[in-house]
Amino acid sequence: MTIEGSTTTEGHRRLRLGMVGGGQGAFIGAVHRLAARMDDHYELVAGALSGDPERAVASAIELGIDPGRAYTDYKQMAARERRLKSGAEVVAIVTPNHLHYAAARAFVDAGIHVICDKPLVTSSHEAKLLCKAVERKEVLFTVTYNYSGYPMVRQARQMVAEGQLGDIRVVQVEYPQDWLSTPLEQSGQKQAAWRTDPAQAGPGGCIGDIGTHAYHIAGFVSGLKVESLCADLHTFVAGRKLDDHVQILLRFTNGARGMLWASQVAPGNENALRLRVYGTKGGLEWCQEDPNYLWYAPLGEPKRLITRAGAQSSTEAARVSRVPPGHPEGYLEGFGNIYTEFARAVMARQQGKSVDDEVTFPSVSDGADGIDFIEAAVKSSQRNGKWVTI
Amino acid sequence: MTIEGSTTTEGHRRLRLGMVGGGQGAFIGAVHRLAARMDDHYELVAGALSGDPERAVASAIELGIDPGRAYTDYKQMAARERRLKSGAEVVAIVTPNHLHYAAARAFVDAGIHVICDKPLVTSSHEAKLLCKAVERKEVLFTVTYNYSGYPMVRQARQMVAEGQLGDIRVVQVEYPQDWLSTPLEQSGQKQAAWRTDPAQAGPGGCIGDIGTHAYHIAGFVSGLKVESLCADLHTFVAGRKLDDHVQILLRFTNGARGMLWASQVAPGNENALRLRVYGTKGGLEWCQEDPNYLWYAPLGEPKRLITRAGAQSSTEAARVSRVPPGHPEGYLEGFGNIYTEFARAVMARQQGKSVDDEVTFPSVSDGADGIDFIEAAVKSSQRNGKWVTI
Amino acid sequence: MTIEGSTTTEGHRRLRLGMVGGGQGAFIGAVHRLAARMDDHYELVAGALSGDPERAVASAIELGIDPGRAYTDYKQMAARERRLKSGAEVVAIVTPNHLHYAAARAFVDAGIHVICDKPLVTSSHEAKLLCKAVERKEVLFTVTYNYSGYPMVRQARQMVAEGQLGDIRVVQVEYPQDWLSTPLEQSGQKQAAWRTDPAQAGPGGCIGDIGTHAYHIAGFVSGLKVESLCADLHTFVAGRKLDDHVQILLRFTNGARGMLWASQVAPGNENALRLRVYGTKGGLEWCQEDPNYLWYAPLGEPKRLITRAGAQSSTEAARVSRVPPGHPEGYLEGFGNIYTEFARAVMARQQGKSVDDEVTFPSVSDGADGIDFIEAAVKSSQRNGKWVTI
Amino acid sequence: MTIEGSTTTEGHRRLRLGMVGGGQGAFIGAVHRLAARMDDHYELVAGALSGDPERAVASAIELGIDPGRAYTDYKQMAARERRLKSGAEVVAIVTPNHLHYAAARAFVDAGIHVICDKPLVTSSHEAKLLCKAVERKEVLFTVTYNYSGYPMVRQARQMVAEGQLGDIRVVQVEYPQDWLSTPLEQSGQKQAAWRTDPAQAGPGGCIGDIGTHAYHIAGFVSGLKVESLCADLHTFVAGRKLDDHVQILLRFTNGARGMLWASQVAPGNENALRLRVYGTKGGLEWCQEDPNYLWYAPLGEPKRLITRAGAQSSTEAARVSRVPPGHPEGYLEGFGNIYTEFARAVMARQQGKSVDDEVTFPSVSDGADGIDFIEAAVKSSQRNGKWVTI
Repeated sequence: MTIEGSTTTEGHRRLRLGMVGGGQGAFIGAVHRLAARMDDHYELVAGALSGDPERAVASAIELGIDPGRAYTDYKQMAARERRLKSGAEVVAIVTPNHLHYAAARAFVDAGIHVICDKPLVTSSHEAKLLCKAVERKEVLFTVTYNYSGYPMVRQARQMVAEGQLGDIRVVQVEYPQDWLSTPLEQSGQKQAAWRTDPAQAGPGGCIGDIGTHAYHIAGFVSGLKVESLCADLHTFVAGRKLDDHVQILLRFTNGARGMLWASQVAPGNENALRLRVYGTKGGLEWCQEDPNYLWYAPLGEPKRLITRAGAQSSTEAARVSRVPPGHPEGYLEGFGNIYTEFARAVMARQQGKSVDDEVTFPSVSDGADGIDFIEAAVKSSQRNGKWVTI
Repeated sequence: MTIEGSTTTEGHRRLRLGMVGGGQGAFIGAVHRLAARMDDHYELVAGALSGDPERAVASAIELGIDPGRAYTDYKQMAARERRLKSGAEVVAIVTPNHLHYAAARAFVDAGIHVICDKPLVTSSHEAKLLCKAVERKEVLFTVTYNYSGYPMVRQARQMVAEGQLGDIRVVQVEYPQDWLSTPLEQSGQKQAAWRTDPAQAGPGGCIGDIGTHAYHIAGFVSGLKVESLCADLHTFVAGRKLDDHVQILLRFTNGARGMLWASQVAPGNENALRLRVYGTKGGLEWCQEDPNYLWYAPLGEPKRLITRAGAQSSTEAARVSRVPPGHPEGYLEGFGNIYTEFARAVMARQQGKSVDDEVTFPSVSDGADGIDFIEAAVKSSQRNGKWVTI
Repeated sequence: MTIEGSTTTEGHRRLRLGMVGGGQGAFIGAVHRLAARMDDHYELVAGALSGDPERAVASAIELGIDPGRAYTDYKQMAARERRLKSGAEVVAIVTPNHLHYAAARAFVDAGIHVICDKPLVTSSHEAKLLCKAVERKEVLFTVTYNYSGYPMVRQARQMVAEGQLGDIRVVQVEYPQDWLSTPLEQSGQKQAAWRTDPAQAGPGGCIGDIGTHAYHIAGFVSGLKVESLCADLHTFVAGRKLDDHVQILLRFTNGARGMLWASQVAPGNENALRLRVYGTKGGLEWCQEDPNYLWYAPLGEPKRLITRAGAQSSTEAARVSRVPPGHPEGYLEGFGNIYTEFARAVMARQQGKSVDDEVTFPSVSDGADGIDFIEAAVKSSQRNGKWVTI
Repeated sequence: MTIEGSTTTEGHRRLRLGMVGGGQGAFIGAVHRLAARMDDHYELVAGALSGDPERAVASAIELGIDPGRAYTDYKQMAARERRLKSGAEVVAIVTPNHLHYAAARAFVDAGIHVICDKPLVTSSHEAKLLCKAVERKEVLFTVTYNYSGYPMVRQARQMVAEGQLGDIRVVQVEYPQDWLSTPLEQSGQKQAAWRTDPAQAGPGGCIGDIGTHAYHIAGFVSGLKVESLCADLHTFVAGRKLDDHVQILLRFTNGARGMLWASQVAPGNENALRLRVYGTKGGLEWCQEDPNYLWYAPLGEPKRLITRAGAQSSTEAARVSRVPPGHPEGYLEGFGNIYTEFARAVMARQQGKSVDDEVTFPSVSDGADGIDFIEAAVKSSQRNGKWVTI
C-alpha cells in the first residue's frame, strides 16, 4: 500500500459545461454532475434542463446556473452558447434516448464538444449521421459507457493488451437486474416508464439499457470485435412493450466464443454487471458491484486478487485512481474518470495538442457500434436465433 | 445452530456391493467407494476392477475384497454373483462411458440393482434399451448425477417446488473448468485421454463430462423441462477430437428461458458449477465449490444466506445432512447421499416396501434424458445453432 | 431497486472554504477537497496550504485559489479571513497532528467553523481547551472520523438504536493495514515519516492513526461508552519510535465486552476496518473495504445482506446515499457525507435554525474522547495491561 | 487442476476399534465413526456406548457391533478387550469431558491405543498423570483437535515452517458461535446441558469447548508457544454456570503478539473458527467454514487464493486430500484425516516401524497443553486480567 498524494490532477482550469436534460426528478443528470465535479475540471454554466419553462429555471437556480442561461430548447441553447464569449465548451446530453440524436447533433454542428449518455441514438441511421457530423465538425465526443471508467476495468484491458492472458478464447459477460420484475412502468415510475416505451427508448428495452453496457465492456477489455451473434430476446412482464430479458451467443472475429446475458427480471440482482475473460494463458474476472477487485488467474497458478491502486496495479489503472488501496472508489469515481479524461482531451485540443495516448473514453463510433449491436440482436431474435453479422 | 445427534442413520445392515471399473489408478472409483462407506450401508464384496487379471486381483486385495471374487469380466461377474447366496446386491459401474451400457445391462439383466456413473450411456438408442431392461427386470437403478445429492441443492429444489420463487422465468447454469486448457491428453494423463476420445467418451466431450451435470441440476432444481435448445459447441485445443467448450440457449416448456455454459478451458475455474434460478417472487443461487450456502432473494427484500442445517433449512436438506451448520459437508458427503438414499430404497424394496417419498436419486430415465440432451446439443451445433427439440 | 432521482441535494449555495495544510505532495488534503466538492456545498477560496511561501502560492494557483488568499501562516489567515466581507466561513485543518490544536484554535477563536482531521489534537489537555473554546465561541466543529459517514454505518447505528439487535453484548472492531511492515519511514516516504514521529504524530502511532477510527466507529454504531480498557501496544519494526500494533480488551459501561485490534504490520491488509456488533436479538457485520454491504443476522434466522439504498435500507442510510443500489459508493462519498451534513448545519446556523436531528457528524467532544482513548491505551500498556478507566 | 487417482490409501487392513460414549442421541460419537470409516482403516468391534445397559446394547446392535461386546463400563471393556485375541486395538473416547481421564487411563493402562475427544481432561493434574501413563505404557494417543486435520491448515503450517511468512509477528484467532445466545441448557437440550455444567465440562465453558480448538490451531500453524496471556472470561446468559464468552491477549515466546476470541453468544456465527497469521514476509488467513481455501499474501504482492489440491498446494496438504480441487472436502474429511494418520502410526508401530515424519496428529501433550491454557485463562480472568504464564 502507498498513501502518497493523489495521482489525479485537480483544478487548474474548469471547462464551461452545459447540460441537456437532467432537471428536477431526473436520475442520470445528477450522476453526470457529480462526475463532472469529481476532479474539478468543469463548471456548470448553462442548461436546457427541462422542456417546461418553470421547471427549467427552477432547476437551473437550484444548480447555481445563471437563470439567463436556462433554456427550454437545446437548439436555442446551442445557437446562443456558440456565440457567447464564455459559452459552454462542452455539453452533456442526459435526456431519454429518443432525444439524443437531435440534441447531440445540434451541439456538434455548433462546434461544441459533447458528452452523451448511452445508448448513443435509436437507430444505426442516426448513428452514422452523427459520426459523420462529429468527423466533419472536428469536435470531441464521448458516450458514457461509464463502466469502462473503473480503474480495474482499465487494468483488465491493459493486461489483455499486454498479452498476459495469451490468446483470448472466451468472453462471458452478464448484467442482471431485478427492478423491472413487476410492471413498474404502470405505476408511473418515471425511470421505468420511458425505458419501457419504444417511443422514448428506441427498439431495445433491456438490451439498450444494460445490454449495451455489457457489450461495450466485453469489447473494451478483450480488445475483440463481435463478428456475429445469435439472440433470444424475451419479454416476461405482461403488457411490457420492450424486451426485459436478453440471452445471446457471441462469436468474435478471432474465433473466440462468448455469451451475453442481461435481465431486468432476476430477483436479487441490483447492477450485477460481471465480466470474465479467458485466454490460453490465464483468466480474469471483474464485477461492477465490487469494482475495486480484479481476479487474475494465471493458468496453473493460484488466483490472485488485484486491488485498485494495490500491488501490481497497472499504469492505466493508476492513472484513474484517486485514493490508496483499501479505500474503495465507486460508481461515481468511475463515471468521473470518463469526464476527467474527456476534459484533458478537450483542454489539450484547445491548446493544439493531442493526448490520445494518455486518455481513454468511449468514442462516438463506440456508441454507433452499440447501436449496431442492438439492431443485430433484435434482428436475430426476430428470426428465431439466426446468426446475424454485426 | 443445533448440535443434536446426526440425522443420518448409520449401519443396521450393509448391502453387498460390487464394482465394475475403479481399479488402481482410477479416479471416480475411489469416490464411489468413499460415498458407499459414508453412512455404512454398503460392504464391498466383489469387483471387476480391471480388465487386466493381475491388476484386478491386486486392486481387489488392496480393497479388502476376497480375491475369489475379483473378476476381469463383468459378464462373468454378473453371472456368478447372481447365483451366489451372498452375491452382490448392488453393483456400481465406474468405467469410462463406452462400457456403461453393456456393463449396466449385464447386471440389470441379472436382476442386480445398479449405480451407474454419468453420462448413462453413449447414445439415446442404448439409453432406451437400458430403460426398458430396467423396467422389465424391476431393478432399482441410479445414475450418479451426484451434485443433486448436496443438501442445499435439495433445499433449492424444495423451495421451488413449494412455490417460494413463484413462477420460474429464468434458469442460468454454468460449469467451467480449466484442466483441459492445454492438450493434456497428449501427455498420457489417463483421465484426459479417455474423456477426449470419442471411442471411450461417446459423442460429447465437455458436454458429456460436465455439461450433463449442469443440465441435470438445472432441471432437478427448477422442476422444468427443456423444450428446445440452440447450441454452439466448440473445440479450442488443437488436435482435440471432442468439444471442450459449450454454450447453449435454453427454452423450457413453461416459457422460461435459460443459458448453459460449460467449459474446460477457462483458467481459474476448478469445478465452478453454479446454478441461478429466478421466478416471479424470488431468486436462488448456489455454487458447488461453496456447497453449504444457498442464496435466497425474495423479491423486494434483502438476500438471505441459508446454510446447510442452519436456520430455515428445509426438511429435504435436513434429511441428507450429517453434522451441524458451520461444519461444512462436501463433495463426498453429497455423493454419499445418493448412495445412502439408494440403499434405503433397495432395503425397502427387499422388504416389499416403498420409500419413494422419502428418498431422492437420479433415475435411469434422468440418465436417458441427459443422453437426449447431448444428442440435441451436438445436432443443434452441427446445424449452426438451429433450435432443436429435446 | 429504485433509480429515482438522487436524494442528496446539490448546490443551492456554496460555503466559502479555507484549508490549512494539504499543499502539493500531501495526501489527505486532496481527499478533503474531493469530499467538499462531492455535493457542491463548498467553494475553496483561501488556504495556508504550506509553510513554504513558494509552495503555498503554487498550490493555491493549482487549486484555483486567488493567490492573494494564499497564506503561509494560519494565524494570519484566520485574522484576515475573519475581516474579509467574503472571508472563509469554514476552514478545514489537514496538517499533521501536532499542528491541529493551534490551527483549529486560531479559527475557532476567529469565530470560523472548523473541520479538523483526526486525531483531534495530541493531548487531552489540548482537547479540553479546544472543547471549551468551541463552546465559548459557539462555532460548529467536526472531526473527520470519516468512516461514520458511510451509509451502511449509519444504517447499523440506526438498527442498534432502534433495538433490532436487543441489548448489546459484544463489540469486535479491527483495523489492520500492512503498509508499515517495513521501516518505510527511513526511506523518506512523507506519510510514513510524520506518522511515526512522536513530535508530529503525538503519543500514539498506530493507535492514533487508525486505532482511533476503530474506537470511534465502535461507539458510533453500538451507542455504547467504553468504561475501561486493557491494552498491549507494541512496536515490531526496529527503530520505530511509536507503536505499530495495538491489541486492546474493552469493557463497556453497560457490561458489554469487546476487543480492538489495529495493526500496520499485517501483510495482505490494506484498510480492513471491520466492525461486528452482537446483541441478545441479532448481530451485524460491516467492512470498510466492501462498504455498500451490511450483514444482519437476526438470532435464529438466516443472515441477510442489506445493500446501500437497497431493500430495507434505513432512513439514516438513505439520507446519505446518492445513487441506486448496486452502484457502489465509496470512501470519497462517505467522506463527502461528513462535509455535506456539516454544510447543512452551518447553513442552518447562519439562518438561525437548527438541523441537529437531521444531520450527523462527529463533534469536537467525539474528538476529545478519541484523545482520552489514546492516552488510556498508552497508560494501560505502559502498566503491562492494567485495566484503565477512560 | 488434476483429477488423478485419490492420494489417500484405502483399506488394506482395518484396525479393530472400540468406542466409549457415543450411544443413541449423542453427537460427536457419530462424527468419530464417520471419521473412522472415511478411509476404511477401522472396523468398529466393541463399545461402552452408554452407561444404561439397554441403551448400550441397542446402540451396539444399531452400529453392527456384536452384542457380546457391548459394555456398560469402560473398565470392564478395557479388561476384557485386552485379553481377547481379536480385541480392540484402538479405542475412541467420546464421552463428556469429566469422564475422559478415567476412561482414557483405563485403556492406556491396558496397552490399548487411544483417540480421545477434546479437551483432554478437566485439570492439569489429570493431564500430567495421563501423559506419564502414555509414556510408561508406550501406547499411541491422539486428542481430536480435528481442525488440524484440514488440508489447508496443514498447508498453512508447512508454509510457516518453511519460512514463507518470515518471522511471525502476529497471530489472530477467533471462534464465534451463536447457539448458546439463549439459556438453551434450561430447555433440556443435551449438548447444551453438559457443556454448561462444571461437573461434566470442567472449569471452562466456552473456553474449553471451542477456545481450546482456537488455541491449538494457533500454535499448530504458527509453530509458536504462548508464553503468557491476559484473559477476560465472561458469562452473558443469566443463570449459566460457566463462561460463554472469552477474550484473551496473547504473548508468544518469540515476541509475537496475538488475540484469541471465542464466543457462544454471537448471533450469525455457526462455527466461524478463523486464523490469521502475519510475519515479516507475508500473511495467511483460513476460515473453518470455507476450509478448502487458504489466502496467502506475500508482502507487496496481490493476495493469492490457494485451493485444496490446487496449484501450489503443498505436500503436507496433498497427503490428506482425497479428491481434486474444486470438489470441496469438509469437516468429516478433516476429522477423518486425524483417524487415518493415527491408523497409519498404529499399523507402523505394530510392524515395529515408525512413521513419525509421515503422519501428523495432536499428541497427548498437545492435549495437556490445552488444559494448561484453560487453567491459565481462568486464573488470569479471576485476577482481572493479570498476565499469567502458561
